[in-house]
Amino acid sequence: MSSILIQGGTVVNADRAFKADVLTQDGKIVAVGTDLQAPAGTTVVDAGGQYVMPGGIDPHTHMQLPFMGTVTMDDFYTGTAAGLAGGTTSIIDFVIPNPQQPLLEAYQTWRGWAEKAAGDYSFHMAITWWDESVKRDMGTLVNEEGINSFKHFMAYKNAIMCDDETLVNSFKRCLELGAMPTVHAENGELVYLLQKQVAEMGITGPEGHPLSRPPMVEGEAANRAIAIADVLNVPIYVVHVSCIEAAEAICRARARGQRVYGEVLAGHLMIDDSIYRHPDFATAAAHVMSPPFRPKGHQEYLWRGLQSGNLHTTATDHCTFCAAQKAAGKDDFAKIPNGCGGVEERMAVVWDEGVNTGRLTPSEFVAVTSANTAKLFNLYPQKGSVSVGADADLVVWDPAGSKTLSAKTQFSKGDYNVFEGRTVKGIPSHTLSQGKLVFVQGDLRAERGAGRYLKRPAFGSN
Amino acid sequence: MSSILIQGGTVVNADRAFKADVLTQDGKIVAVGTDLQAPAGTTVVDAGGQYVMPGGIDPHTHMQLPFMGTVTMDDFYTGTAAGLAGGTTSIIDFVIPNPQQPLLEAYQTWRGWAEKAAGDYSFHMAITWWDESVKRDMGTLVNEEGINSFKHFMAYKNAIMCDDETLVNSFKRCLELGAMPTVHAENGELVYLLQKQVAEMGITGPEGHPLSRPPMVEGEAANRAIAIADVLNVPIYVVHVSCIEAAEAICRARARGQRVYGEVLAGHLMIDDSIYRHPDFATAAAHVMSPPFRPKGHQEYLWRGLQSGNLHTTATDHCTFCAAQKAAGKDDFAKIPNGCGGVEERMAVVWDEGVNTGRLTPSEFVAVTSANTAKLFNLYPQKGSVSVGADADLVVWDPAGSKTLSAKTQFSKGDYNVFEGRTVKGIPSHTLSQGKLVFVQGDLRAERGAGRYLKRPAFGSN
Amino acid sequence: MSSILIQGGTVVNADRAFKADVLTQDGKIVAVGTDLQAPAGTTVVDAGGQYVMPGGIDPHTHMQLPFMGTVTMDDFYTGTAAGLAGGTTSIIDFVIPNPQQPLLEAYQTWRGWAEKAAGDYSFHMAITWWDESVKRDMGTLVNEEGINSFKHFMAYKNAIMCDDETLVNSFKRCLELGAMPTVHAENGELVYLLQKQVAEMGITGPEGHPLSRPPMVEGEAANRAIAIADVLNVPIYVVHVSCIEAAEAICRARARGQRVYGEVLAGHLMIDDSIYRHPDFATAAAHVMSPPFRPKGHQEYLWRGLQSGNLHTTATDHCTFCAAQKAAGKDDFAKIPNGCGGVEERMAVVWDEGVNTGRLTPSEFVAVTSANTAKLFNLYPQKGSVSVGADADLVVWDPAGSKTLSAKTQFSKGDYNVFEGRTVKGIPSHTLSQGKLVFVQGDLRAERGAGRYLKRPAFGSN
Amino acid sequence: MSSILIQGGTVVNADRAFKADVLTQDGKIVAVGTDLQAPAGTTVVDAGGQYVMPGGIDPHTHMQLPFMGTVTMDDFYTGTAAGLAGGTTSIIDFVIPNPQQPLLEAYQTWRGWAEKAAGDYSFHMAITWWDESVKRDMGTLVNEEGINSFKHFMAYKNAIMCDDETLVNSFKRCLELGAMPTVHAENGELVYLLQKQVAEMGITGPEGHPLSRPPMVEGEAANRAIAIADVLNVPIYVVHVSCIEAAEAICRARARGQRVYGEVLAGHLMIDDSIYRHPDFATAAAHVMSPPFRPKGHQEYLWRGLQSGNLHTTATDHCTFCAAQKAAGKDDFAKIPNGCGGVEERMAVVWDEGVNTGRLTPSEFVAVTSANTAKLFNLYPQKGSVSVGADADLVVWDPAGSKTLSAKTQFSKGDYNVFEGRTVKGIPSHTLSQGKLVFVQGDLRAERGAGRYLKRPAFGSN
Ligand SMILES: [Zn+2]
Ligand SMILES: [Zn+2]
Ligand SMILES: [Zn+2]
Ligand SMILES: [Zn+2]
Ligand SMILES: [Zn+2]
Ligand SMILES: [Zn+2]
Ligand SMILES: [Zn+2]
Ligand SMILES: [Zn+2]
Repeated sequence: MSSILIQGGTVVNADRAFKADVLTQDGKIVAVGTDLQAPAGTTVVDAGGQYVMPGGIDPHTHMQLPFMGTVTMDDFYTGTAAGLAGGTTSIIDFVIPNPQQPLLEAYQTWRGWAEKAAGDYSFHMAITWWDESVKRDMGTLVNEEGINSFKHFMAYKNAIMCDDETLVNSFKRCLELGAMPTVHAENGELVYLLQKQVAEMGITGPEGHPLSRPPMVEGEAANRAIAIADVLNVPIYVVHVSCIEAAEAICRARARGQRVYGEVLAGHLMIDDSIYRHPDFATAAAHVMSPPFRPKGHQEYLWRGLQSGNLHTTATDHCTFCAAQKAAGKDDFAKIPNGCGGVEERMAVVWDEGVNTGRLTPSEFVAVTSANTAKLFNLYPQKGSVSVGADADLVVWDPAGSKTLSAKTQFSKGDYNVFEGRTVKGIPSHTLSQGKLVFVQGDLRAERGAGRYLKRPAFGSN
Repeated sequence: MSSILIQGGTVVNADRAFKADVLTQDGKIVAVGTDLQAPAGTTVVDAGGQYVMPGGIDPHTHMQLPFMGTVTMDDFYTGTAAGLAGGTTSIIDFVIPNPQQPLLEAYQTWRGWAEKAAGDYSFHMAITWWDESVKRDMGTLVNEEGINSFKHFMAYKNAIMCDDETLVNSFKRCLELGAMPTVHAENGELVYLLQKQVAEMGITGPEGHPLSRPPMVEGEAANRAIAIADVLNVPIYVVHVSCIEAAEAICRARARGQRVYGEVLAGHLMIDDSIYRHPDFATAAAHVMSPPFRPKGHQEYLWRGLQSGNLHTTATDHCTFCAAQKAAGKDDFAKIPNGCGGVEERMAVVWDEGVNTGRLTPSEFVAVTSANTAKLFNLYPQKGSVSVGADADLVVWDPAGSKTLSAKTQFSKGDYNVFEGRTVKGIPSHTLSQGKLVFVQGDLRAERGAGRYLKRPAFGSN
Repeated sequence: MSSILIQGGTVVNADRAFKADVLTQDGKIVAVGTDLQAPAGTTVVDAGGQYVMPGGIDPHTHMQLPFMGTVTMDDFYTGTAAGLAGGTTSIIDFVIPNPQQPLLEAYQTWRGWAEKAAGDYSFHMAITWWDESVKRDMGTLVNEEGINSFKHFMAYKNAIMCDDETLVNSFKRCLELGAMPTVHAENGELVYLLQKQVAEMGITGPEGHPLSRPPMVEGEAANRAIAIADVLNVPIYVVHVSCIEAAEAICRARARGQRVYGEVLAGHLMIDDSIYRHPDFATAAAHVMSPPFRPKGHQEYLWRGLQSGNLHTTATDHCTFCAAQKAAGKDDFAKIPNGCGGVEERMAVVWDEGVNTGRLTPSEFVAVTSANTAKLFNLYPQKGSVSVGADADLVVWDPAGSKTLSAKTQFSKGDYNVFEGRTVKGIPSHTLSQGKLVFVQGDLRAERGAGRYLKRPAFGSN
Repeated sequence: MSSILIQGGTVVNADRAFKADVLTQDGKIVAVGTDLQAPAGTTVVDAGGQYVMPGGIDPHTHMQLPFMGTVTMDDFYTGTAAGLAGGTTSIIDFVIPNPQQPLLEAYQTWRGWAEKAAGDYSFHMAITWWDESVKRDMGTLVNEEGINSFKHFMAYKNAIMCDDETLVNSFKRCLELGAMPTVHAENGELVYLLQKQVAEMGITGPEGHPLSRPPMVEGEAANRAIAIADVLNVPIYVVHVSCIEAAEAICRARARGQRVYGEVLAGHLMIDDSIYRHPDFATAAAHVMSPPFRPKGHQEYLWRGLQSGNLHTTATDHCTFCAAQKAAGKDDFAKIPNGCGGVEERMAVVWDEGVNTGRLTPSEFVAVTSANTAKLFNLYPQKGSVSVGADADLVVWDPAGSKTLSAKTQFSKGDYNVFEGRTVKGIPSHTLSQGKLVFVQGDLRAERGAGRYLKRPAFGSN
């Protein structure tokens, strides 16, 4: 059937880069080599002077998330389509049951919502409560539904926060199942108290947001989750590591040989907390997410984590709300819906600040934008690799191409772009999903519903 | 009235050591200098070749503690008397209310029990639950009863364990009151799970005790308490730091300028966890305390903490149970009453392993056996200092004297001595309490009820 | 021509393991896949239940080294043959010019000696002195002779020691050339003083050796070399990291994003320094190498380095002397020729202590025994990878096979084996070099002179 | 004879603060207590609302230093007088022999220069070369001349730089003598290379100075000196710790129990390296000293060192050159005479940034401005203590007093003040030296030649 030959580029994998053509057929890569011949009917893409890399995987998105009586702007279609435009061909989103809600019920709901996705997708399952049914359903999800990772919110008291008892029980269950526990690391009791204290000081605007969630609140929770994992002898993945304190907790644990992995968001790598003191409420509020952006200095430390291999993946926590939605917190920063976008921009900003500055090699870029995620969540080498047999999810990357990021020109829904005005050098010229050209030189050809659900088996099961 | 002249010794304070005589009158030191004249009727003590130091202060004892339906062997009389025999002239014990019990009621109970003490004493108050009355009573205790330190158990789930919510509330209250929060640092949820897991593995003997409380369980809790204190901007004192992991958490915090203080027990400095695998149940069980003794290597790290000033005080957690009491856990290590002795031996073993080995100077010995505790808990320079105006609580220390420690010869009650058989060089020849000779060359002259309750005002109040 | 099909095994690469057959032809891998067909005349190797891995690369050997008026037991033939017997198909040895000797002259000498090698080989060049000719010759070696790594001895005062001036100059030259500087990290001034001090104390036996080279001597030098590399912005590779102090220096540097790499010897992972106190001189002396074996505790820390990715390669520093040679230091430990064997045993002991204990996955084993070395020294993917186009240097690894290591049964020359008596589980059943079966079920078929010199181009040059 | 009663103040010592009067007679403190009676003829100083503290000790000054063919502006008279005006009553200066110059000859030269001093003074001796005579003279200096500390410059290649051989020999000699080795920690080889590299880049102005001496250059040298001290088992004192890298090396060593001490300069606590990019040459050049001022962030870390007890003393490296002298480096930053002032301002700026901000208590201020120096260099309690028998070197400190620092109003010579324009709150109202009022409410009454040479005996000798 459909066949594409990407000619004359430099193939970049996590382990090395080399000149080669790539041939795809029926959604798979069928050849990687020099001077490949195109079968009749093959579309030829000229990748001269460009890199051919695995399509990006964003391991942390929230499409179509119902939250505080509203729903995020991007649904699974628009969100995954925006990803394709940016060179990201897969996402891992989150099923978040309400406390007491059966896990499988929530899972089915999210599966339904996701059917409209334009790119491939998978799910982490959040553990927001605990009883025997939760424990049992975790088994079903791993063994039958292909979910091998579970998320724990250590913040959001009186809502979806896990206390230590649940954390301990769920981590132990993950170990039994060969699944990866993950945590949103913030000490919820401290956030709860600090939000009250900041309010008592008369601070109601977005500048109160970072005051209520200082870095040590994250560092403590990260250290705690890691220590629990160490004692129970289970690996652990810390989502959106945003600060020195949390990154150091990971470094310390890894130095003692523990299997700890860290994710960092594109936004946390670039943006600092001065934005919360912007005089315009809409601008400041548009940046309200948790953990918040951090003081200058933290960004550089996160880059070092990616360079040293102490941090492993880049993500976005894509979760967009428009100005009207953010205005719910006009008089109380704690009521501003938390979330920012980025699924469309991640690859370009990480390349620009990472590769163009010499911090990362192209191979390291592939590692932190797709391969490591694929390995950690058991999608490799189907995803995250340019090799024979892998899915033909590819991005042809033009290191000379350039673009100014803006809400005005983005494909993602929403009226704000946290990278607004930034000009990046290095952008996708073509994106392939399942062997189809879904983005060509600025032309987005995403197809509603074309995305497939990706089952991720337990570790040790294959 | 009574007057004692200690002649010809070397006075040791935390800041320096120097040749001087010391004259006491009516319970106070009235002169420190060379060639002091003895008023008529003065008792003269020859301290030639000896050190004259502040009497030891043990900041962590449990005399007469009701526990698991039994009571510790040493009451306030025998316990403080044993202390005097070892050169320790003051203790700080703990009032431990049951959950829901009014703090002031428990306080009065303990005050009553302590009236028989032979040496001076003070109390820390444990916070084992939380409501508005607890918050109010903390104020009364600080402002009227001279309690400026509050203890929080992070372990002992379903009993006296503080969760993070109470920790956060109580630490904040301490800050308001100018009081010092202290913690027993072990993650109670992990201990609870591990005790079950160890039992499921069929391990019922004392060797299961350290398996259920590994070092990381303590390291995590220490790090958490320190992080909370950092966020709330309150100092913190970690009791019985037993392992590298907890000591490192303190080091890290101190290196960033935080006011964190650490206490180490004489036993944890000397004894390792191989003792729990002793074939004799009584021997192994006699060492069951929490945190447990640690693998070889941890001891040296604790010494380094004392040397570097990252750890500050030495204590004992003196809490003695006899073999009959320990036998309650014959078939289940989790039921062995936790506790070991040491109030009588602390000074001698710390001298022997600390000063004789070159790890500590005599001045550093004074710092970690009395002066630092006096400073941290606001008893200084009334206690912890050989200076004019200070209480005449003194020990004349014979560096050439020697003794073999044994349950057979100890003054302390109980049928076990965790330092059994150890010969120490450096022992008290004389102990003075309130200017009276209460221990002279092996002769204990402790007086029931002679001890006084020491009020410790809030920081910033004097 | 010659063709071999390895059937039914599990291929292990650094990034993943998967069931596949491997077909080689004319020294290259031509197919990796399931159900491969063997062309006529193909030799079929049954790898059922076994792993098929890249042949090991030992990045640190000294074959045929002239030293202290004698020469090591193993020459390039016997040494590389022993490697093949153990699953190691390539070595990187060292050209070590005398001070003032032209680099190219020494290079030609070593090239001559190496012609008899049975397996492929390459060279690091030692910089033992400095002038403009050395600087110039470094360029020639990189650009024409395929040497892209330079070694610096920070110890061996009055012999081949580099002072800081030479270190700084040579590191800077490496940066210009795209070559990797490497260091033997021990502070030579301290070793010089300590050897004298130990001798003055009357210690002449091998037990003096570790006293004259304590861990901090290595930690200091490692930290210094790394700091210099950081300031000059050049990567650095630390050979034979043997202790916590040096490994921590690497960890710290990596955590700040620096490109630092560490090598660990098989011996340092297993053996502790108590051996130097063995009453038999020959036994103790047989273990004299620098850095020495370290106190218990250091070994575990090195394993953690491999687990965390803070250490990267395993090597042996294979440099064997027989008892008669070692006896030169009978009356003065400083005169014992330094060196131990291991090229034959490395793969098996690292597997046994690494994979069998759960410390390393099979893929991580490949990373630290071949792939990382190949990447760091620019041999990848020609070496270190089971993939189409790579050299057919392969080992078929039998995880159920077992063997007791002994000088009596080893292929390596010499009368001592530092792993004597150790029974390992997991051994090579077949080794292929250049597509030929050179070791089959205990039968060594190494061919004198069959090994080829491997040119390693500068980084950035290909 | 002369008698002064300081009434109604709060006495501050390193261990505590308390309300008390202080009575001095004939240059000594004769009473400290409440409601002291003034003998006839006593001068009474009203210290109501003020602190009475030990006079400051500056452990690092260079008065009258011949350097690069010129001599610093302040000689021993004007320099010590300026100190008295700022509350500093003692200095420790440096004897710096030329390489090959006999130590005792240089010592006598400096003793002669110092006779004009207005306040008490002592000397460190620099070891700038090595032979048997140096070793012997060190003994004479310690045993007969009261010099118990030796300085080693690890930078200034081809001038006074110590190589590792000399460092090792001299540290060992210090151990034998009971003397304290100290180091100026910068890697001289790196500085040498970087100065050339910066020049090759065409950078000739003061902005090149910090580029040629980055923090890692200091961190490396500090770590090396500390490691050598650790191996040789001698304490060590690192002068002018200016950056995170060096402070961390000290922290690490202290955490393992090593006796390491750190000094920090008032300037490094306040000023960052942006000043070197000031467009005015004279301004930028006035700040050229080594180590240079550091990027923002380093200052806070140094404060944390003082808070945690990982750094111990504050000093100034007072070494003033006027604009005309600094102009020698108009075309080459490497030729700008290195040095800045501060002896007059240290106490006030450390109080203002340290105590007024809550970083330090008044007792900690005393520790880091006098008591710790006195203890480390064996002047305690003669200096550094308000106690009976101590020298009457005192400062009455007015916490409400305020002053704007400026070259226009300073007593120190020179035309520049690195704290120019800074308004400090907390200044001396009175300074006493040897029991005489030498500074009263802005009126400086320093007497040429009144200062005495302070012999400092070896440790263990008294
Ligand atoms: Zn989150
Ligand atoms: Zn999220
Ligand atoms: Zn406790
Ligand atoms: Zn206790
Ligand atoms: Zn070596
Ligand atoms: Zn070697
Ligand atoms: Zn200096
Ligand atoms: Zn200086």
